[in-house]
Amino acid sequence: MLDQTKLPIEESWVELREPGEVADAIKRMVVRGAPLIGAVAAYGLALAALRSRARTGRELLSDLEGAADLLRATRPTAVNLFWALDRVLEAARRAGDDPEAIRQAVLEEAHKIAEEDLAINKRIGQHGQVLVPDKATVLTHCNAGALATVGYGTALGVIRAAVEAGKEVRVIATETRPLLQGARLTAYELVKDGIPVTLITDNMVGYVMSRGMVDLVVVGADRIVRDGVFNKIGTYGIAVLAKEHGVPFYVAAPTSTLDLTRDSSQVIIEERSPDEVVRIGPVRIAPEGVEVLNLAFDFTPMRYVSAVITEDGVFKPDELLKRYG
Amino acid sequence: MLDQTKLPIEESWVELREPGEVADAIKRMVVRGAPLIGAVAAYGLALAALRSRARTGRELLSDLEGAADLLRATRPTAVNLFWALDRVLEAARRAGDDPEAIRQAVLEEAHKIAEEDLAINKRIGQHGQVLVPDKATVLTHCNAGALATVGYGTALGVIRAAVEAGKEVRVIATETRPLLQGARLTAYELVKDGIPVTLITDNMVGYVMSRGMVDLVVVGADRIVRDGVFNKIGTYGIAVLAKEHGVPFYVAAPTSTLDLTRDSSQVIIEERSPDEVVRIGPVRIAPEGVEVLNLAFDFTPMRYVSAVITEDGVFKPDELLKRYG
Repeated sequence: MLDQTKLPIEESWVELREPGEVADAIKRMVVRGAPLIGAVAAYGLALAALRSRARTGRELLSDLEGAADLLRATRPTAVNLFWALDRVLEAARRAGDDPEAIRQAVLEEAHKIAEEDLAINKRIGQHGQVLVPDKATVLTHCNAGALATVGYGTALGVIRAAVEAGKEVRVIATETRPLLQGARLTAYELVKDGIPVTLITDNMVGYVMSRGMVDLVVVGADRIVRDGVFNKIGTYGIAVLAKEHGVPFYVAAPTSTLDLTRDSSQVIIEERSPDEVVRIGPVRIAPEGVEVLNLAFDFTPMRYVSAVITEDGVFKPDELLKRYG
Repeated sequence: MLDQTKLPIEESWVELREPGEVADAIKRMVVRGAPLIGAVAAYGLALAALRSRARTGRELLSDLEGAADLLRATRPTAVNLFWALDRVLEAARRAGDDPEAIRQAVLEEAHKIAEEDLAINKRIGQHGQVLVPDKATVLTHCNAGALATVGYGTALGVIRAAVEAGKEVRVIATETRPLLQGARLTAYELVKDGIPVTLITDNMVGYVMSRGMVDLVVVGADRIVRDGVFNKIGTYGIAVLAKEHGVPFYVAAPTSTLDLTRDSSQVIIEERSPDEVVRIGPVRIAPEGVEVLNLAFDFTPMRYVSAVITEDGVFKPDELLKRYG
């Protein structure tokens, strides 16, 4: 895997050989982004299947369930992780009693999840690009790009598809503290693709909207529940500002992100280490002794969401519930 | 002066001997905070008076006006800078023709501005602390503390006065990118004073408000015009979120910050170097080739402001115009 903690300074690759290494890479955000975490976790189970010395199907299933528990415990908020693990376990259970057949089924399911993700993102892009006018400036938060998925991206997929459709598109990327995925990853992807991108700090969103500089917002999602969207911390503030300024606010996400049997009260928002806030590289930016709150995600109620873009189309919140609920 | 660019890691003092050094310190934000900039600029003129070899009052006034132009050109948004320079120049003009009398008048006026600022902040604190309930959590942005003033602070003065009045107060401080005055300076001041402070990234304001964790917002101001408040970038987004959550939003500032003959269209928002965004200490956080927008301030229309706290009392926006307009 490309170590995303090192970008954009260094393109450094790590090899993951054990499910425990995969779990650690997800936890440390060497890989991140809801769809990518799902695909990587699926391969984590494939590694568990290959490494297992189980001689019966039953033993192997038990090993896989142990590995799934390990992978499940890495990050609590994005649902694609759980969806992918369940899907691979289900394929394993369907494969019968022969350990080799199970191993093959697990690996195939991981491949399928990865391949499908790329195709799904292209379809999200196709549906979503219709919403992007020519000469539009799109604001996006965090990184819902190729680096957050198997490729192409969800929110950035919409932007890429608009560019491929011949539209002139400019992007405003929020840096996305504390881990700076906007500055480090989104800016990196867009500069590489030659799509014009302006980087701002998270607290400049109000300014750029008040000056009429933003035509629409497109972000990804980590989990979509009945009453709203969990996504990277800061998304909610952007959604409130978008509504205040009459700017459409779109969420681009595969259906694997949907969790419409739950509502927001049933979802845990991950709290991460204070170190992510008080240190940037080797630099300490706050005094010793200060308390820190470091939430990785926030919740945006559906009343702020103009539409959700999935691989099946564009859905207003009530339509989304009708279609998938 | 205490070099605020080095805090909280290092308490390093610099000696300023020439008006040019004072201008440079203001520009590089070695000293910052609207009221402090005013006082420091006044002393910059005092240095100009002491350094000048003028032998007539007229020559000395001309030297002072040159130094004032230099100091005026440092930062365009906060009005206290212009107010302090005008006040010292006026004192110089009133002092007659004798260069020594002018030198003395200039130094005295600088001393007066500095002494008054401390007293004014205490009065702002007294008026403002009435608005802070016992056991309140106050959210503040950037640093409107002792370090932004001659002492005590405006927004932090309100918090200090509430604590001195025996109230239990907790503070949520936004880190305030790009220069991190919240993390570096506000957290530092409050930890030193033993006032409980929790540091958050700027994009967590929506989250903490949506969870009911904020009872009121108090910020400082760089310039208050007829239709609203210029303050550190990010203030506007906090004000919109405060309104959305029914959280009172207060601005604490001395009357030297008022510029009620102007409206927002007549004020320049300072744009600073992209380096402040893409570098944190020695760490580069964004790819080469990315465009950056780095505004130092934003504008919050009066409809988001619950009240302005000055040394004279607490004023709703319409009352403020009636009193001072």
